[in-house]
Amino acid sequence: MQPILIVHGGAGDIPESRVAGKLNGVKDAVRAGYTILQNGGSALDAVEAAVASMELDENFNAGYGSVLNLRGEVEMEASIMRGSDLNVGGVTLVKEFLHPIKIAHKVLTDSPHSLLGGEGAKLFALEKGFQPIPSESLITEHAKEALENFLKHGDHGRTEIGSPDEGGVGTVGAVAVDAKGHVAAATSTGGMSGKAVGRIGDTPQIGSGTYADDNLGGVSTTGHGESILKYCLAHSIVKLMESGLDAQTATTKAVNGMTSKLKNTAGAITLSKDGNVGVHFSSKRMAWAYVKANLIFYGIEQSEILEEAYKAK
Amino acid sequence: MQPILIVHGGAGDIPESRVAGKLNGVKDAVRAGYTILQNGGSALDAVEAAVASMELDENFNAGYGSVLNLRGEVEMEASIMRGSDLNVGGVTLVKEFLHPIKIAHKVLTDSPHSLLGGEGAKLFALEKGFQPIPSESLITEHAKEALENFLKHGDHGRTEIGSPDEGGVGTVGAVAVDAKGHVAAATSTGGMSGKAVGRIGDTPQIGSGTYADDNLGGVSTTGHGESILKYCLAHSIVKLMESGLDAQTATTKAVNGMTSKLKNTAGAITLSKDGNVGVHFSSKRMAWAYVKANLIFYGIEQSEILEEAYKAK
Repeated sequence: MQPILIVHGGAGDIPESRVAGKLNGVKDAVRAGYTILQNGGSALDAVEAAVASMELDENFNAGYGSVLNLRGEVEMEASIMRGSDLNVGGVTLVKEFLHPIKIAHKVLTDSPHSLLGGEGAKLFALEKGFQPIPSESLITEHAKEALENFLKHGDHGRTEIGSPDEGGVGTVGAVAVDAKGHVAAATSTGGMSGKAVGRIGDTPQIGSGTYADDNLGGVSTTGHGESILKYCLAHSIVKLMESGLDAQTATTKAVNGMTSKLKNTAGAITLSKDGNVGVHFSSKRMAWAYVKANLIFYGIEQSEILEEAYKAK
Repeated sequence: MQPILIVHGGAGDIPESRVAGKLNGVKDAVRAGYTILQNGGSALDAVEAAVASMELDENFNAGYGSVLNLRGEVEMEASIMRGSDLNVGGVTLVKEFLHPIKIAHKVLTDSPHSLLGGEGAKLFALEKGFQPIPSESLITEHAKEALENFLKHGDHGRTEIGSPDEGGVGTVGAVAVDAKGHVAAATSTGGMSGKAVGRIGDTPQIGSGTYADDNLGGVSTTGHGESILKYCLAHSIVKLMESGLDAQTATTKAVNGMTSKLKNTAGAITLSKDGNVGVHFSSKRMAWAYVKANLIFYGIEQSEILEEAYKAK
């Protein structure tokens, strides 16, 4: 089949000043992943590459540019899932590595476990040859300002990014179906500004932040983590597809259902196993992009679908 | 309505020598929770009390008696969910507290977050007045033997408890519907013998280990954690009830579906919002008990349902 890859760069009250950077970032990410698919690579490698591209980009709240906990530290988390056998890998409470998604992928392939946290995630990463870096090197000026704003005005309000004036940086995610029809999904985040030390959100929880099943499709979510996990948002979308809804209808129904029930916003990107797309967000904005048939489609505003010719990097 | 409470004491290859202790333990736990329901207490308080009873009991792999990681340490996790508003609390990588479920309940009521891990869970517990104890005081001779056996023979095989000869101690859980029709569910565990440092299982992951929704019912699961979380077992059971299946049919279908797909065993206890019971396990044994209409029903073998008159403590 024709491979397809979709990415998101986080749902939230993204301020105007951050729109251009995020749109460029999701387009770069989709190119990083799609190149792999075009060269016959797997959905799993493609979603990792797309997410890793955004982990490097300070426009997003993942890897470099992650937001800070109440103690001013980075504590990151990520998960990745392979639809062929439902195998998953996740890490949480990671402080000293640039690419949590790459460690999560290694958990998937090399660990008898699915999710490793804190010291255990670090020990695993070191054992597998990942290079630790000073945690402070992941911190941007923007993340510091966001924490300062949170400490002045903050509550863990409508979105993962706290109060709107702190500037939106978002969780990142990707879903792909490769030429062999295999599905994968991946999500990575720095969490929410001003979170408590040790807070674990929806991103590493399978069925909340990430889900993929070759028989149905894949999902990556973003938004108010505590609401997403109470609703098992990713799994809810997949189950709606199982009941016969198409990817877009399932995504819209579950995201809106969560917002209606829990009064917080979220967004999700979905691919059915046949490569049909679902994109929906109840937040003000969410950056997303996908490539299909030599066109790149993207957007960040409600009801916005932009398109242009796809050019590989 | 007539309140009801059901508990489990873990699915696995429980050896004959552990059967009596587990059956006594689940009956004690059901009494601890049911007394609260009879006195007009909430489902949430009842499931906490039932789980806390088993955390104290070395017949179970939770609190005192938790199994050990590869470094010989206790790392416990627990979650609790309130069906009226889907609020949840969870903790993971907890080492120095006797009752993880009580800290999880406090996360539910007092934290803006849903899941706290490691140092952050400890800081939260201390702030809320929980008394730390030496982690070593939670370790039993049985847990040490189980780790030794794992190190000799072990693989993270069919069940959470590793190889059968190490002696089965299990995850614990409870689900209740109180007189007002509110649903709650709770689960607590020490994980699996010989797990990696920092391994997080299904128990604290909402939708995998625990789920409760007043509109549908509640579930607590036990078994091979990495399989349960890939399948989102608790959420799958609740979604099957939403699609019209009764509690028993939904539980049987999802547990068997997981085992068929992922080749590992599990068990679950379920209550529908009307108090109908589902109990099923694909492992050799799972201890369970519930009280209804002055009778206590219980069992540990496949197809076994024992009953006797219910006597409060």
